[in-house]
Amino acid sequence: MNYFSSDFKLGILGGGQLGKMLLYETRKYDIHTLVLDPSEEAPCRIACDEFFTGDLMDFDTVYNFGKKADVLTFEIEHVNVEALEKLEQDGVKVYPSSASLKIIQNKAKQKLFYVDNNIPTAPFSRFAYTNEILTAVKNESLSFPFVWKSAQFGYDGQGVKIVKTYSDLDELPNTECIVEELVPFKNELAVIVARNVSGEVKTYPLVEMEFHPTANQVEYVICPARVDIEIAKKAQLVALKVSAALEHVGLLAVEMFLTQDNEIIVNEVAPRPHNSGHYSIEASYTNQFEQHLRAILDLPLGRADSKVGGVMVNLVGSEGYTGNVFYENIEDIMKIEGVTPHIYGKKQTKPFRKMGHVTIVHEELDRAREVAGEVKKLIKVISK
Amino acid sequence: MNYFSSDFKLGILGGGQLGKMLLYETRKYDIHTLVLDPSEEAPCRIACDEFFTGDLMDFDTVYNFGKKADVLTFEIEHVNVEALEKLEQDGVKVYPSSASLKIIQNKAKQKLFYVDNNIPTAPFSRFAYTNEILTAVKNESLSFPFVWKSAQFGYDGQGVKIVKTYSDLDELPNTECIVEELVPFKNELAVIVARNVSGEVKTYPLVEMEFHPTANQVEYVICPARVDIEIAKKAQLVALKVSAALEHVGLLAVEMFLTQDNEIIVNEVAPRPHNSGHYSIEASYTNQFEQHLRAILDLPLGRADSKVGGVMVNLVGSEGYTGNVFYENIEDIMKIEGVTPHIYGKKQTKPFRKMGHVTIVHEELDRAREVAGEVKKLIKVISK
Repeated sequence: MNYFSSDFKLGILGGGQLGKMLLYETRKYDIHTLVLDPSEEAPCRIACDEFFTGDLMDFDTVYNFGKKADVLTFEIEHVNVEALEKLEQDGVKVYPSSASLKIIQNKAKQKLFYVDNNIPTAPFSRFAYTNEILTAVKNESLSFPFVWKSAQFGYDGQGVKIVKTYSDLDELPNTECIVEELVPFKNELAVIVARNVSGEVKTYPLVEMEFHPTANQVEYVICPARVDIEIAKKAQLVALKVSAALEHVGLLAVEMFLTQDNEIIVNEVAPRPHNSGHYSIEASYTNQFEQHLRAILDLPLGRADSKVGGVMVNLVGSEGYTGNVFYENIEDIMKIEGVTPHIYGKKQTKPFRKMGHVTIVHEELDRAREVAGEVKKLIKVISK
Repeated sequence: MNYFSSDFKLGILGGGQLGKMLLYETRKYDIHTLVLDPSEEAPCRIACDEFFTGDLMDFDTVYNFGKKADVLTFEIEHVNVEALEKLEQDGVKVYPSSASLKIIQNKAKQKLFYVDNNIPTAPFSRFAYTNEILTAVKNESLSFPFVWKSAQFGYDGQGVKIVKTYSDLDELPNTECIVEELVPFKNELAVIVARNVSGEVKTYPLVEMEFHPTANQVEYVICPARVDIEIAKKAQLVALKVSAALEHVGLLAVEMFLTQDNEIIVNEVAPRPHNSGHYSIEASYTNQFEQHLRAILDLPLGRADSKVGGVMVNLVGSEGYTGNVFYENIEDIMKIEGVTPHIYGKKQTKPFRKMGHVTIVHEELDRAREVAGEVKKLIKVISK
């Protein structure tokens, strides 16, 4: 199919900042786009050809929207997967597939999938309700501390808690969940795998994530990760194994831990362009958004390696500020060479809300990481 | 002023492919944009916040549009410059300024400006009407061959002709024009200079343009130009001199010839992002569109040097095809590493119409140029 000169229509479920960055790339290929999002003020609104508002979890809304598209994708996992299944039966191409999304949407299913496919992951137990954990602790089949994860709708560190005491347990919602062993790790790592419809595969370099000490949010993403080449290779092989086992079409961001014993274990995956790949806009030969498009349109994949060292800093709302956003010192960070801010366009800030990101590129990765530290110190997302 | 969190509005005159690429960058900064273009189907339509249709040469239309903006810029030179002057008097910030544009809009004025400012350029004569040339030839104050240029509205090689005989003269429109000596040159070169409101200046590397042997259109732009470092330095100094003399704010693309004697002479300039800078999207630390924004918003300029070697190939309609466009073999070129097509979204092709461009990047410039040749051979812009 020649997407560049036809009446082809691409549908995107979700109109947030990921969708917005994906839409930039559709413009490069002149692809006609439809977006569905619950908010009238979604960032995607002005970058697509046709915008629809509606509930992404509602079967009819998603089904009726999907029928307008030739290829359907999503920028968020929380969409009605039964509607995607029905659309696939009707002949709409849904990438990533409903089968892939179904496994990923539910963290208990995701973990079982890893076990079934011999993919290394932390030992875990599944519970239909959080209050069943109490019984397990009392029976001594489980002991503090451990990691609790809601099976559904976990996002950005919400839905994940480290449980150390009985009272920590009381604060959790009573929902389907998993409990994981607290594996001591040296590093959080990620690999993005791109796989197109025909099965061509490319992996991005291993990246390293530095977390905020208290907020459980990524502060820096560093590409390439500063680890041994052998570890990077091992991590890429694990990521490829996950993508192949899922027969995943599109991008798959595989988040991993490097354990104290230099083992790689999979934490979780995201079936879409991912925060850990934002550096690619400035640093990679093919950015993750263009690559996702190439993959789901069954175009040849682009080079996934980097031109230069890249570090990404998340721009989140500073603690103590809620209200109309103001980016303090943004001009000061732009004075520094190799610094590009990306502002998502949310009008209101609140503590730890993701408001944008900043990419720092440099021939020398160490210098990029130094500058990232300076950027982090200078810029403040406050209200005025 | 903090553009990133205010009610600031940027107005853009012209809604073509240059405006579209500029708009991608405004999204990165979340800047509210207004676009004026005569066509309901302008490529910018879906990428701006507010779209207006109207004649760019009409005083009232441009003035009334400009009044809505805090900063006004243009992606095309053919706009009503008197309206820009009035807007400046009213306090609207117009960048590049009406004074700069006025000099550039008219090729006779532009040439006189070079002479007045000691900027090297080919010897020339100015004529109020083309038919006055005949008298000059007969008086032997002018002899064949020479270059004829319409003083106004020259664009993309139209409005420029090499005149070798009396009958060539007959085919020209009877308009204000200049006649230039046909200077034998080794190379066509260009430098893009960025200058922000505060006067900070950055120059992009010298690029080399390879022209189509018959169509007088650029086929390849190669960055950096394959010339001596001394020539590159000289060209950059000449370009800086033009930008400074104009007190130009925004991008200024300075097209030059390298003569047989290794002298640099200025051919003409464009006060905006330019075809010779498209390679920058993939190859430069800061692409020309982001740089233009930084300049006109008085933000610090970004690095203008390159991460990798870059070559751009213009995608123009193949001879013999007019109608609904079809990009033959586009998937084949995308299979080659480092190749990114940019499709402008024009539905109809005709011979030599600019339909898009392709960028090729590689660590080794020579390899990028080789691939560009392969791309040029493979892809055909035809109708179906």
